[in-house]
Amino acid sequence: MRIALGVEYDGRAFAGWQKQPHGNTVQDVLEQALAEISGVAVKVTAAGRTDAGVHALQQVVHFDCEVARPLTAWVRGVNSRLPHAVSVVWAKQVDETFHARFSAFSRSYSYFLLTHAVRPALCAGRVGWYHHALDIDAMRAAACHLIGHHDFSSFRAAECQAKSPVKTLQCLDIDAHQGLLRFDLTADAFLHHMVRNIVGALVYVGKGALSVEGMGELVAACDRTAAPPTFMPDGLYLTGVGYPEAFAIAARAEPCRLTLWR
Amino acid sequence: MRIALGVEYDGRAFAGWQKQPHGNTVQDVLEQALAEISGVAVKVTAAGRTDAGVHALQQVVHFDCEVARPLTAWVRGVNSRLPHAVSVVWAKQVDETFHARFSAFSRSYSYFLLTHAVRPALCAGRVGWYHHALDIDAMRAAACHLIGHHDFSSFRAAECQAKSPVKTLQCLDIDAHQGLLRFDLTADAFLHHMVRNIVGALVYVGKGALSVEGMGELVAACDRTAAPPTFMPDGLYLTGVGYPEAFAIAARAEPCRLTLWR
Repeated sequence: MRIALGVEYDGRAFAGWQKQPHGNTVQDVLEQALAEISGVAVKVTAAGRTDAGVHALQQVVHFDCEVARPLTAWVRGVNSRLPHAVSVVWAKQVDETFHARFSAFSRSYSYFLLTHAVRPALCAGRVGWYHHALDIDAMRAAACHLIGHHDFSSFRAAECQAKSPVKTLQCLDIDAHQGLLRFDLTADAFLHHMVRNIVGALVYVGKGALSVEGMGELVAACDRTAAPPTFMPDGLYLTGVGYPEAFAIAARAEPCRLTLWR
Repeated sequence: MRIALGVEYDGRAFAGWQKQPHGNTVQDVLEQALAEISGVAVKVTAAGRTDAGVHALQQVVHFDCEVARPLTAWVRGVNSRLPHAVSVVWAKQVDETFHARFSAFSRSYSYFLLTHAVRPALCAGRVGWYHHALDIDAMRAAACHLIGHHDFSSFRAAECQAKSPVKTLQCLDIDAHQGLLRFDLTADAFLHHMVRNIVGALVYVGKGALSVEGMGELVAACDRTAAPPTFMPDGLYLTGVGYPEAFAIAARAEPCRLTLWR
């Protein structure tokens, strides 16, 4: 039987999502906890691989297991075996046509950025930081050049394994609240480092180092070397994954799980 | 000359505010960083001692130093010598009549509580947790028994060193937003564990284990052994300290410093 899980984690504690020879990834600790509850080896597949330091409010994974357990065991039982920085928020049985990665038609990320003269202490590792106020109107205007169906090569890490650099960015909203900025992005899929590279370029616009038109030229250039540097992972959260309605999987985590949410 | 600082910290990283023989307190690391910048030993005095695991958005401290430094050195210079979990947010010169503790006429704390079947992962250590929804209306009604001038012995830790258990609780607001609760408290001063003991009693009201009238009786009893247990420190934040206007010290931290803020 196939089980889907919604998984929340604080990325600071791990070397990213994906299994590594040296362990200490979210996948490693989750598979270990699932194995302890089921008594058999379990391999999970995730909607999206997140890098070291990147958080998830709702990573979606699936696994196949011949051992029957009540759904509460996959939540409360597994949580009792997981480190504090990871929790399974929900579990549901899905039919075998569901695939956490291949059934997904969209991914949503949020990036939180503190613009303040003093670095964050309470939110260290959980928000990005820029030491000065940014021009939000210019950033919003520049974001319009990014929304839509584009070749995002200018925002693609060299090591990206995606088959195509062409993606559809459905949403890029920028909300500002007293020096705390929030970027909400939704796309069919994201290239490696794409959100952090977009945030890096938008910060350049906000500080006046890249013009609104320059952002349009940067997209057209399809050249990573022409773009501003990758922004820090600290403020990046995978907030949800979109699936066909038939699977009945919520596209977003519950707001109360992230107190950053407004 | 006397300098006042606004200090922010993540309490998880430290064994509380106050200097300890084994170190690793906020006071220890702050005094060490100030000594590195000034070149002389510095002793700081804080508005309030916070326990292990309790956070501060705006702890206020003062120190005397004969070595003159620009105010930016007491902020950016000191921050370069502090661990990531602490930062000095502002510094200002004050006259010698200012005393971080004795000049303060009020302290404000907030407590954040996640009510959800699943323990927090992203906000582990930063919010308290109760596994079920609570009756907010009953909690608000019970809070009315606490507001005002009372003997708070029922909410006082055995090891409390305050001269008197009589305090004036000026404010106890409860805000709820989709399963995330926020308690805002302001008093002239707080007894040891007073906020955590009040939150513990209010959670008992919210889950139906203590009646609204029972809260009134608990206050009147002046008996710690009659009260529900102390709630976990995780969700507790010192948010600001009130001083006479002449000192021109903001009573609260800037909202953007805490992304929990709404």
